[in-house]
Amino acid sequence: MDKEMIVSWMEEGMVQIPSVLLNKYKQIGLDEKELVLLLHIQFFMDRGNEFPTPEQLCERMSITADECSAMLGKLVQMQLIAIEEGMSEEKIRFEKYSLKPLWIRLAEELIAEKKQQDLEHTLHDEH
Amino acid sequence: MDKEMIVSWMEEGMVQIPSVLLNKYKQIGLDEKELVLLLHIQFFMDRGNEFPTPEQLCERMSITADECSAMLGKLVQMQLIAIEEGMSEEKIRFEKYSLKPLWIRLAEELIAEKKQQDLEHTLHDEH
Amino acid sequence: MDKEMIVSWMEEGMVQIPSVLLNKYKQIGLDEKELVLLLHIQFFMDRGNEFPTPEQLCERMSITADECSAMLGKLVQMQLIAIEEGMSEEKIRFEKYSLKPLWIRLAEELIAEKKQQDLEHTLHDEH
Amino acid sequence: MDKEMIVSWMEEGMVQIPSVLLNKYKQIGLDEKELVLLLHIQFFMDRGNEFPTPEQLCERMSITADECSAMLGKLVQMQLIAIEEGMSEEKIRFEKYSLKPLWIRLAEELIAEKKQQDLEHTLHDEH
Repeated sequence: MDKEMIVSWMEEGMVQIPSVLLNKYKQIGLDEKELVLLLHIQFFMDRGNEFPTPEQLCERMSITADECSAMLGKLVQMQLIAIEEGMSEEKIRFEKYSLKPLWIRLAEELIAEKKQQDLEHTLHDEH
Repeated sequence: MDKEMIVSWMEEGMVQIPSVLLNKYKQIGLDEKELVLLLHIQFFMDRGNEFPTPEQLCERMSITADECSAMLGKLVQMQLIAIEEGMSEEKIRFEKYSLKPLWIRLAEELIAEKKQQDLEHTLHDEH
Repeated sequence: MDKEMIVSWMEEGMVQIPSVLLNKYKQIGLDEKELVLLLHIQFFMDRGNEFPTPEQLCERMSITADECSAMLGKLVQMQLIAIEEGMSEEKIRFEKYSLKPLWIRLAEELIAEKKQQDLEHTLHDEH
Repeated sequence: MDKEMIVSWMEEGMVQIPSVLLNKYKQIGLDEKELVLLLHIQFFMDRGNEFPTPEQLCERMSITADECSAMLGKLVQMQLIAIEEGMSEEKIRFEKYSLKPLWIRLAEELIAEKKQQDLEHTLHDEH
């Protein structure tokens, strides 16, 4: 059993969050529920489901499907996630989430922070 | 600038969550705020601060230091985190968090789930 | 361009290796080429290709396809990877790699190491 | 024992490699031994040892300390790793490795690849 446990654990795998997201979600206007919703979206996408439904997403969260829909709408409106259109090989249209806008937003935060630090260094050196 | 961005991003690093935690936090009685608090504790521990204060932990969260203290107390009481005593080389006592109880609890969930699945297979095979 | 870079970097993603594998590959009889081959197999599997060919695997390595085939054969013989049979929804048989035996082997190493440590503690306490 | 295993496994942790490194090490002139040496350096740095010795690094590799020294020299010369000087709080000078040059180099590869793709798209669209 011992070893089977390790196999199950490994096969479940890990979810990775850029530390920047953990450290700046509040700064970009998100709360913990919204952060965790993003993690669930990432989790589904990593496993090949690129457009999980509110029902699938809320199942392991402490929110209802309606609350989940509202949160998804807000994230799209805040331009942190996007819904993109794709076309399958069989010429069937499908929709999928993209987290690109989120990464871009976090990159902007990093750039702004770096500029601020450089400015402070310059001011500090002048004195 | 391009390349410096990548360096900053890499140096910030990633936080890793076992998928089991993301998928079962609700099942073991946690909500999203508590899950994210655990992630922040892990983040501080990974960087060598083994006993972050409620003030440090709440700084990047949408909760106050008092709420954070209360949540930490609840997590200890639920036996999901533990506070351990250590002794430094200079014979100074210090306290640190341990997430061992959390991993053990999740392992128990995995075992229970596996037993359930095995049972269902057995019942299924008998018919 | 800055921000596009971060997006590309994020979308490429990370490969994760359990530290146990990095620290014990030599101990279980592997060299660096074989370790990296395992990482490439994991990389393909994570992206949905569960049975990459020697040609696909060697393309980004400093070995030929023949050397790669020989190494894969050796890893199967050492019982560190397995080839499993699956059946698709359309009733087509297919083969896929499994890294289960590797995780089990590493778990065994961890158990053996822990027993050794416990034994040493016991001996130490008796004196 | 079961659950203790999971704890050991979790506490050992994971090493993360950007997929870009796994996919392009050959392209930037590295072989598998050099790639794995970089992973070992990263592993030590993540755990607070910023200047591991060749002896420490080679211990878990299939190379000797002399070979390891030679490889480190080559990586510095190739400008993929750098040795930086630091000053401790007690005003003691120390040396540490930096992997910044590696991340920059990989970022350059990503940029070059993206430009190439854009060019191909442009040429393609013109026809």
